[in-house]
Amino acid sequence: MTTTGADFQRARSADAKLQREVAILDAARRLGAARGIRTVTLTDIAEAVGMHKSALLRYFETREQIFLRLTAQDWREWGPALRASLEASADTSPAGVAQTVAASLAARPMFCDLLAQAPLNLERNVSLDSVREFKLVTLEEVSALSEVLRRIRPGLTVEQSIDLIAAATSLSGAYWQMATPGPAVEQLYRSDPRLAHAVVDVEPRVARTLAAMLEGFARH
Amino acid sequence: MTTTGADFQRARSADAKLQREVAILDAARRLGAARGIRTVTLTDIAEAVGMHKSALLRYFETREQIFLRLTAQDWREWGPALRASLEASADTSPAGVAQTVAASLAARPMFCDLLAQAPLNLERNVSLDSVREFKLVTLEEVSALSEVLRRIRPGLTVEQSIDLIAAATSLSGAYWQMATPGPAVEQLYRSDPRLAHAVVDVEPRVARTLAAMLEGFARH
Repeated sequence: MTTTGADFQRARSADAKLQREVAILDAARRLGAARGIRTVTLTDIAEAVGMHKSALLRYFETREQIFLRLTAQDWREWGPALRASLEASADTSPAGVAQTVAASLAARPMFCDLLAQAPLNLERNVSLDSVREFKLVTLEEVSALSEVLRRIRPGLTVEQSIDLIAAATSLSGAYWQMATPGPAVEQLYRSDPRLAHAVVDVEPRVARTLAAMLEGFARH
Repeated sequence: MTTTGADFQRARSADAKLQREVAILDAARRLGAARGIRTVTLTDIAEAVGMHKSALLRYFETREQIFLRLTAQDWREWGPALRASLEASADTSPAGVAQTVAASLAARPMFCDLLAQAPLNLERNVSLDSVREFKLVTLEEVSALSEVLRRIRPGLTVEQSIDLIAAATSLSGAYWQMATPGPAVEQLYRSDPRLAHAVVDVEPRVARTLAAMLEGFARH
C-alpha cells in the first residue's frame, strides 16, 4: 500500500491539530494550577499559547470544555495511581485506607479545584457529547477503584464503595475551595480569632471522615 | 423625649432602606429557587424588583453579596429547625440521626445550591466585612448544632460533630449540583444506559454516608 499525497497531508494536519490541542490543554493547566481555574479565561489561555482567541475556538467550544478535558485527564491519572497505592499498602485498616485516599487527593490540588468546579460550572457550558465523554471516563475510573476497594476491604458492598469514592472526591473538592479562599480572606481568617475555626485542614478532615465511613460500613 | 423632624426623617429613610433590601433579597430568592442561582444576574434581580441596576448597587456591592446574605439567612433558618427535629426525634441511632439531617437538607434545595456556591463563588466577590459576617453566622450555627448532636449522641467529640456537619452540608451541596444538571444533560443521563449510574439520589446517599460516619465514630 502506498501513501498518497492527500493521505500524508491529512495525517500531517491531524497531527498538527492534536499538537495544538495538547499545547492549549497544557497552557490551561499551568494557568489553573498557578491561580485557581476560576479566574482563567479563554483569552488568558489563548495568550499563553500564543494564539488568537478566535483560532483557539476552532479547537475547543468553550473554556469549560478545556477544563472538563483536564478533569478527565486527572481522573485517568489519579485513578490508576490510587489503585496502585491501595494495592501496595500493607495497612488495609479503615484508617490506613482512608489516609491513602485522602493523601492521594490532597497531593493533587488542581484536581481538587476541578472536582468542585465540574458539576457547578464545567458540565454546564459544553456540548452533550463532551458531558457524555467526561461522564464515561469518571464512571470507568470509579468502577475500577470500587473493585480494588472491595478486594482490600472484603464485605464492602458496591454501593458503599461508590459512596466512599463520591464522598472522597466531593469533600476534597469542597474543602479545598474553603481552604483556598484567596489571600485577602485567608488573612482575615488568621487575624480574627473567632474565625480561626473557619480554616479547613483538608487532608486530615477527609481522612477522618473516610475512616469513620469505612469503620461504620464494616458494622453492617 | 420628643422626636425631632430630622430623627423622624432618618428613621423613615432607614426603614425604607431596609424594606428595599428585603425586597431585593426576596426577589433574588425567588429567581434562584426557580432556576438555580448560577444564572441569576444583578440585572435580573433589579428587573424583578423594579429598580435600575445602578440603584440596586446602592444596597448591595455585588450579586454575590446578595446570595451570600441569602445563604446566611438559610443557615439561621436551617440550624434551629434541624436542632428542633433532632431533639424531638425518638430515634437517636446513627441511621435515625443521619436520616433527620439528610432530610432537613434535601427539603431545602436552594440552600443546597447556595452551600455549594458559597466557597467557590459567593465568598470571592464580596468585601471582607461581608465574608466575616457570613462566617460568624455559620460558626454560630455549627456550634449550636454540634452541642445538640453531642447531647443526643453521647461520646461524640466536638471534632467529630463538626466533621459530620461539614460533610452533611458539603455533600448535600455537591450532590445537589450533580443531581440538577439542567434538563438537557438530565435527558442524556436517562437516555444512555451507561450513564444511568451518573444520576445521583441526594438524600439517601447523604443519609447512608452520615449513618456510616456516626456508626464509625461510635467505635472510637
